[in-house]
Parts: sequence; C-alpha cells; structure tokens
Amino acid sequence: MSSDDKKGQATSDAGQSASVFTHKMVRLEDGLSLECGEHIAPLEIAYCTYGTLSPARDNAIFICHALTGDQYVAEQNPLTGKPGWWARMVGPGKPIDTDRFFVICSNVLGGCLGTTGPTSVRAETGTAWDSDFPQITMKDIVAAQVKLIDHLGIGRLFAVVGGSMGGMQALTWIAHHSDRVFAAMPIATSPYHSAQNIAFNEVSRQAIFADPEWHKGRYRDYGAIPARGLGVARMMAHITYLSEDALNRKFGRRVRKAGASSDAFLFGEMFEVESYLRHQGSTFVRRFDANSYLTITRAMDYFDLSADHDGDLSVPFQNCSTRICVVSFSSDWLFPTTQSRTLVRALSRAGANVSFVEIESDRGHDAFLLDEPEFDRTVRGFLDGAAEHAGLRRGQG
Amino acid sequence: MSSDDKKGQATSDAGQSASVFTHKMVRLEDGLSLECGEHIAPLEIAYCTYGTLSPARDNAIFICHALTGDQYVAEQNPLTGKPGWWARMVGPGKPIDTDRFFVICSNVLGGCLGTTGPTSVRAETGTAWDSDFPQITMKDIVAAQVKLIDHLGIGRLFAVVGGSMGGMQALTWIAHHSDRVFAAMPIATSPYHSAQNIAFNEVSRQAIFADPEWHKGRYRDYGAIPARGLGVARMMAHITYLSEDALNRKFGRRVRKAGASSDAFLFGEMFEVESYLRHQGSTFVRRFDANSYLTITRAMDYFDLSADHDGDLSVPFQNCSTRICVVSFSSDWLFPTTQSRTLVRALSRAGANVSFVEIESDRGHDAFLLDEPEFDRTVRGFLDGAAEHAGLRRGQG
Repeated sequence: MSSDDKKGQATSDAGQSASVFTHKMVRLEDGLSLECGEHIAPLEIAYCTYGTLSPARDNAIFICHALTGDQYVAEQNPLTGKPGWWARMVGPGKPIDTDRFFVICSNVLGGCLGTTGPTSVRAETGTAWDSDFPQITMKDIVAAQVKLIDHLGIGRLFAVVGGSMGGMQALTWIAHHSDRVFAAMPIATSPYHSAQNIAFNEVSRQAIFADPEWHKGRYRDYGAIPARGLGVARMMAHITYLSEDALNRKFGRRVRKAGASSDAFLFGEMFEVESYLRHQGSTFVRRFDANSYLTITRAMDYFDLSADHDGDLSVPFQNCSTRICVVSFSSDWLFPTTQSRTLVRALSRAGANVSFVEIESDRGHDAFLLDEPEFDRTVRGFLDGAAEHAGLRRGQG
Repeated sequence: MSSDDKKGQATSDAGQSASVFTHKMVRLEDGLSLECGEHIAPLEIAYCTYGTLSPARDNAIFICHALTGDQYVAEQNPLTGKPGWWARMVGPGKPIDTDRFFVICSNVLGGCLGTTGPTSVRAETGTAWDSDFPQITMKDIVAAQVKLIDHLGIGRLFAVVGGSMGGMQALTWIAHHSDRVFAAMPIATSPYHSAQNIAFNEVSRQAIFADPEWHKGRYRDYGAIPARGLGVARMMAHITYLSEDALNRKFGRRVRKAGASSDAFLFGEMFEVESYLRHQGSTFVRRFDANSYLTITRAMDYFDLSADHDGDLSVPFQNCSTRICVVSFSSDWLFPTTQSRTLVRALSRAGANVSFVEIESDRGHDAFLLDEPEFDRTVRGFLDGAAEHAGLRRGQG
C-alpha cells in the first residue's frame, strides 16, 4: 500500500480561505471483487479530506458525489480551476462544519479523477481499461468506499451524505453497511432508478455511440475522444437537472448573436439557453471520460434496492440502525418527491429511524447544489441533532 | 396550377372501413413570401381530405399536425403502413365526424411528405434545397395553409384543430386570420415555446450535427443520412412526450435479453424502455428528413405570439371573433397546463370567446393522441356547440 499525499490551502468560491485540505490516493493491492464476478486489482482510490479526525475516530462524514461530481467538494478543482462543487455546504462553520467533522470524499469507482476506472492502466495489460472496464454497480462503488474507511481506520462513520447518485450511495451504505454508519442523509434521490431516468441515460449513451470518434470505446487508441456525443449527452442531462421555472428565469426566450456559425439561426440569432447548453456540453468533455460516463450511468440504471426482495423495498432496511433524514426538493422532476416518499414509507415499514423533509424550491434537481437556506438549516440541524445522540463533543475537530 | 388526385378506401386502426379519403397535391406557381424575406416558388402542398365539402362551403375543419406528424390523419400512412395518427378522432361518427364535416390536413411547409420543404427540388437549381431551405416560421406554415383553403374556395373554415405544434398553428390562425376561422381548438400547446422546450430542441439539433453523416446538411450529396443523430433526437423527444407514470406503467424496470450487441449490458440484459426507445429512433429515420426536423424545430422555437407586442400576449387576439376551446392535459410536462392558463388569461383580457378544459390524464403530452374518453367528449361537444352557433345543418356532409 502506498499513498501520495498533497496538502494545500484552497480558496473557496467566495474568495475566502477554506480549511486545509488533503488530496490523497490510496492503492489497495488486494483489489476489489465486483458483483459481476470479476476482480480488479490493484484498487486505487483518490480522495480529499477536510478537517481533523478525532482521537476517537468518531467524527467522520463521508460525502458521496453525483454522476459527474468528484472528490473536490470544498476546494478548487485542479482540472477545471472552479470552486469545489459543495464549497457552500462544506467548510469551517458551514452546515457540514469542518471545524467539527472530518469530511471524506472519494472519486467513485469507475470515475475518471484518480480512482480506478476505465481510464486507469490495467495491471494485466499495461494499457488503459477503456471499454473493457467491467460493469460495476452501486454496491461495488460503496464497497470501494468501505475499503477506504477501513484503510483510514474508521470503524463507524458518523454520517454519510449524498445528493442524486450520491444519495443512491448513501442508501446503499445503510442497506448493506448500516452498522458502519450512525446517520445518513440521502438527498434528491430515489431507492430505484425510474424508467424515465433510465430512458434519459440511454439517450445519453446512444449519443456517445453515435459519435464517429467513439470507435466502440477504443477512442484512445485512435487519439480521439467522442466529444460531440458526450457533449450532447451532457446537454440533455443538464436540462433534466433544472426546472422549467429555473430555465425560464435564467434564460426565458432571450436571444443573442449567433456569430458566424454554420449552424446559425434565423436572422443570425440564437437563444441564450442554446448558447448556455453548448457551453455546458463543450466544457464537460474536457473533464470527463466517455467510458466513465457509460459505466456510471449503467450503475445508476441498475440501482434498485428492492430488486433482490421481490419488489419489497422495506426488506433491505430491516435491522437498519442508522438515523436517516431523507430530503427532496419540490420542483425536482428527475428525482421527484414521490420517489422519496416511497423510500420513507419503506424505511418506516422496516422500523427505521427516519425523518423526511421536502424543501420548497423552484430550481429543480440542482437545488441541492445551490443556495437554499432552508436546506442548509436542514443539513445543519440533522447533523447537530445526530451528533448529540452520538455523544460527539463540540469543536473536537 | 395542377393537381394530382388519388382516391381510395382506407382501413382504420380498428380494421374497420374508414371514410373515402383523397390524397391531393396542389402546385401554386406564385409561391409564398416568407417572413425572413425570401420567396419560394412554386409552392407545393400535399394534403388529405375526408368527408364532403357542403354546398355552402361552411363545414370545413382544418387539422394541423404536430412536429413529426403528417397529412395522413385518418387512413393508413403509405410510408409506414401504420394507421392514421388521429384515426380514433377523425372519421364517420367519430368526435370529428366526417359524415358531417369536411376535414382537411396538409403536410406542413418545411415538411418531408410532399409539401415544399428541404427535400423538394428547387426550381432555380434543379436539385433539392437540403440545408439551403430558408428558415420558416409558424406564420409561414399557416400562410401556406391559407393559400390551400383559398385554392379550395373556402372563405371561412368552420374550425381549426391541432395539438402540440398543431396547436401553435391553430393559435396562429386565430391571431392572424381570425376572420377566416369560426372556431378553434388549440390542444396541449402554448402561445410561446418555453426555454425548456427550446433546450430540448437544441439538444436534438446538436445530436444531428454530431452525426458523421450530417455533412453540414448536404448528406444527400454523399448518399448518406444522419440516421444515428436523428435517431437520438427522436429518442430524446419521445421521452418528453410521455409522463413518468406512463413510462413506469409501460416499462417499469423490466429487462430483456440484449442480444449480441457490442453495447450489451450487465449480465447480457437491457431495460425494455431502452429497447423501445431504440426502436422509436430507428423507425423514425426511415420516415423523416433531418433538414426538415431542423427547419420545423426552429420554427417552433421562434414561436412566441407576444414577441411583436412587448410581451403582451393579449394584443394579437384583439378583435378575435373566433370561438376558442383551449385543452390541456394534467400530466403534460412538455406543454404544461400553466402555459394553457397563460394563454386563456390573455384571450380573456382580449375579450375573446374562450373556454378552457384541463383533462385529467396520467399519460403526458401524448395523451392527445391516445384513447381519452373525456377528451373525445370535449372535442365532440365543442364542435357540436360551435356548429349550432354557426348554423350548420346536421348531416349535411
């Protein structure tokens, strides 16, 4: 086992100094056995931490990132130069308070920011896995996270928190490793991926397959990337992250000059929302790998906690000792409140300790990443209450 | 002016004999001046009619089709071999009763089923317009329809009926040609295309542009069609036509064998919804032209009846004498009820004669094409009431 540590001082989106952060990479020679039957070794996990692990090792919060997220929760992302994706939530004095808690976030298995995935070099061949990377599941993704906390010597996490696909991971933790999590917040998520969400993912994949630079997943051998297909996939997904109201407010039907593009529009104008989406698509392809996108979207599609239990969603939560707070957003149509309610009913049937908060917001699925004061209060309140029940001392970080 | 008529006996989806139908093609040498300043000549319009025009020429109903619809409303589509897209609504004794009314439906300007569009041969060059076809608007599409009823010697339509983009045309008729329409039913539509809808259309277009067979719109010169891109566009659009409930009911998370595809899934299975969407995509490209798709989606995006009136949507409806019934469907998230309400308020402010019906349905935007008994009763009831006010005799067809 070796690790590559790097410490630094980050600057948050507000330009203020954030807590000291640590990029780490752990290499586990034993590797990981996957649900599909394959075994990958070694297993590398890239992660960041914030704050300090208490002497009792009881103040760790694991944050699970979403489909296109990464481990750079609260500091500048070195690839994009942008602030951490949850810098407004995680930091000293913030709702997930790094003066108090030790925060861990790892790039997911199958990802493309350091953790073993399609872009990693395969030990057996000396070349990248690319499209030969085995199909993983949410359970595999979480199994890698369990290995990370084992490595860190953490017996039980104080909490697991995650939104969207991060919420699927939080649910997987409490369904399969409840004894290792004191509290959990699955946010803007669902206990299964719906037909509509599978459908959107499938269109994303078809857009990638349609790209001439796809080369059946061996694009790297051709010195190419399926940038247009991946861009289209991202553009479409991006629409599903926003509400109709948010799009109307942000762009409405405003137009701008289209420039000298061959795809120019009537009277040389294009809508601002088009320009915005094109930008979203083109910047995404610089930071994300197409095979990772395929691997992870499929893992999402296969996520269904009731699958092995004849559709009874309460079974996986029996004997669940974790304190759970489920959060949804009223205008989220990708992971609508109805799916959270289905989850909460199943948890209640299983006798779990669960509370549920629907946040009123008109900003759609992405609301969990945005400035939503009621959401902040919910996160802070739940964690503070749970910390009290867990007997965590204040300011121990 | 020349016409090419073809009469036949069609079979409806129920296998019953439908009314005698007529395919017609009219060629108007004068052509049409477009909003963008260009003039196209000749203008050819392909259309179907059902029933018989009354001696007083006062019983004509113009049906406006949606984005990927066509003139084959109530008989087998000769290209696909499938029943007419509204065979359940239009025919003898049906809600739009061809024993009583003379029904006209023409392929829209810019379409690819006979009316002048990108696939038509350009008189000046002797080759197809392809991507040089000028950008048209909803007003241009309706202007071509006005020319058709002029040609048919119809001074005033009894009614204009259309769903989705067909509803945009119905609204354009009453905003610009109210004196030529006694009654109108805009269904599952909006007085403007929203930012979300523009966004979805833009992703469709980008999917087409990303196809290696796109060739900047000159694909025909290369003996190619951008089938994968157009297929992806159709797949995505198809999701927006259905509700989450409809997708769950129809497919849920059921899986099927994926076959020996290189895109095969975990454990050799794929979700039924994926298989369904792939089929939707692949059959669509056989019947629709990519340049037509681009031309028409752009016309939809530019649709905003308040655009020339400082955002005041009531202005275009001032002096509107048409009797109007606006219909929306409760689970339609592509053209949600809120947009119909905005329309109805503007019509009311303008003093128009308007009624509004929201149909309870969980089948999304496509509900207007499906078996919805309350919707059928609404259409029949509105047309019967309007016919009485118009002084139409019963069974005059």
